Amino acid sequence: MTAVEAVRWSARQDAVDIIDQRRLPAELVRRELHTVADVCDAIATLAVRGAPAIGIAGAMGLVVALATHEDDAREPFLDAVRVLSERIGAVRPTAVNLPWAMERMRRIARTTAGDGRTILGALHREATQILEEDRAMCRRIGEHGLALLPANARVLTHCNAGALATGGIGTALAPIYLAVEQGRRVIVFADETRPLLQGSRLTAWELSQAGIDVTVLADNMAASLMRDRAIDLVIVGADRIVANGDVANKIGTYALALAARHHGVPFYVAAPWSTVDPATPAGRDIAIEHRDADEIREWCGTRIAPAGVAVYNPAFDVTPAEFISAIITDRGIVRPPYCFVADRHAGSGEV
Amino acid sequence: MTAVEAVRWSARQDAVDIIDQRRLPAELVRRELHTVADVCDAIATLAVRGAPAIGIAGAMGLVVALATHEDDAREPFLDAVRVLSERIGAVRPTAVNLPWAMERMRRIARTTAGDGRTILGALHREATQILEEDRAMCRRIGEHGLALLPANARVLTHCNAGALATGGIGTALAPIYLAVEQGRRVIVFADETRPLLQGSRLTAWELSQAGIDVTVLADNMAASLMRDRAIDLVIVGADRIVANGDVANKIGTYALALAARHHGVPFYVAAPWSTVDPATPAGRDIAIEHRDADEIREWCGTRIAPAGVAVYNPAFDVTPAEFISAIITDRGIVRPPYCFVADRHAGSGEV
Repeated sequence: MTAVEAVRWSARQDAVDIIDQRRLPAELVRRELHTVADVCDAIATLAVRGAPAIGIAGAMGLVVALATHEDDAREPFLDAVRVLSERIGAVRPTAVNLPWAMERMRRIARTTAGDGRTILGALHREATQILEEDRAMCRRIGEHGLALLPANARVLTHCNAGALATGGIGTALAPIYLAVEQGRRVIVFADETRPLLQGSRLTAWELSQAGIDVTVLADNMAASLMRDRAIDLVIVGADRIVANGDVANKIGTYALALAARHHGVPFYVAAPWSTVDPATPAGRDIAIEHRDADEIREWCGTRIAPAGVAVYNPAFDVTPAEFISAIITDRGIVRPPYCFVADRHAGSGEV
Repeated sequence: MTAVEAVRWSARQDAVDIIDQRRLPAELVRRELHTVADVCDAIATLAVRGAPAIGIAGAMGLVVALATHEDDAREPFLDAVRVLSERIGAVRPTAVNLPWAMERMRRIARTTAGDGRTILGALHREATQILEEDRAMCRRIGEHGLALLPANARVLTHCNAGALATGGIGTALAPIYLAVEQGRRVIVFADETRPLLQGSRLTAWELSQAGIDVTVLADNMAASLMRDRAIDLVIVGADRIVANGDVANKIGTYALALAARHHGVPFYVAAPWSTVDPATPAGRDIAIEHRDADEIREWCGTRIAPAGVAVYNPAFDVTPAEFISAIITDRGIVRPPYCFVADRHAGSGEV
């Protein structure tokens, strides 16, 4: 069992080597990003996607883009760091990881003494560190989550919170990868996840690549599957976890949580601790992004709804804490009642 | 406000005039069916679809196909009726309406005295009668359902149980058409209804054509819409209503019912009395058809899931009676506790 690597250094460490996710699931195409234009384009066009993966690709991409400045003196090199990191950071500013990674890289540049070559070396190590930290974070989530999987677990997931979204083995999928690595049998059901089909295109693909048993279903079929007693637990990722434990995640998560509650199926959220936003008190305080109507009205250039018809297309929904059996983080499993506070302690969790 | 006519006689009454639903929502194309091959092809390829509409198209198509036998003597004409009706009836035998309509036409042929021309006249009147009965059935459902719509009703529906599926103004959509006809404002939300998208392709189209306010959403967004308090009631159709009031309908109906229950949104089923199957005691006794995996794996010839990945693709689900606020039939509104019995009386309904 080996999870795919969404983002890594190229063999000669002079490029960012990514899986071009626009080509999935039809074919596995890896691309090497050599310039700032390559990096920005890959992030903008979702060739690389998933908040952690974007942060990593941005940091590594900054290093690659700075290679032509290696012979610069300190000040011109720091100027290049600033200009290029701002350019990369602006491509997708909404997810916190990309701006965060760029700021971290700028701080290393500023605080490293020496000329361009020396600073570049430090930045290369820092980007590698960001990648390694993410890999370790995924593994810790997996290790904590492992205890929640019964023998021959039948797990339902939504969207893609897997290897393709991170530098490692994913978040929601991490316990599954680790269980299979230990020789345990896991059966995964992947919601296709309309409108962008990250479940059928990405989750089903990466699990298939790893030889894991996966079945795809339309989102509206999940409740029936639970009614057939075919699901032992649900694990989904999170875009944001607020102070009271409410979770914003891909649209459709809330409907799943309702169905899970009705059928007595445990509903778990898996996410890095960095997803916790203790400054926001409750889910009602989260602004929900609404996306382009044509995501619903068209598919592959074919019109699937009347031209100009109105569309309701929120990108995320909020699942109230009361529906969440536990939140699996890299620091441990947090159980209700949830109370995430800024001082890094979960009120009643096991952390 | 005028609902589209999915099936009608051509102007010269010598052909079945249908809307070619394969071309929707991109364009409105009407087709005239002149021969038995035309009729079978239209039914087989879903150019005409919806159980009531298929029954009507089959009956009218039989008349059209018999035109070349008009000069036959009685016995050869009855032979032609038998051969052609069996050919048409075999195209989609699962839905009860088509075999039922063919049997009804054969009975008329047998019991009408006279030669081919005379019998053909009787069959033409019978096919028109089947169409008119269906139109009247739709209107009665609409009239009964009208009382359930509050002012400025915001109604969520699933799949297509509208004019395109019947000879009239549909079943689930009938109360909406009648309310708008009376000058009332109704706002409709149409689940796109994966995998075949009858909601976005057909329901949104026919409501738009009638000038009715309609918004399309992916199935997994409906629970969020209810949570936003944007829905006053749900109305869906039914493929089968069994003795205890459990309802088999398009996959996704059950998940909607769960969400409606949680949010206190009334959940109504609208269907002709002919959908009631009192011989089946409960939903668990209904065999659920599972459809081709490529409905989930491909879209418009594009692969959207890994080749060969396993798929869960039930065509229907069963919504337990406990989730159904009332069943709107052409005979009246039936309320729980449901007890449909073979002698045509609903145990505790208002019928």
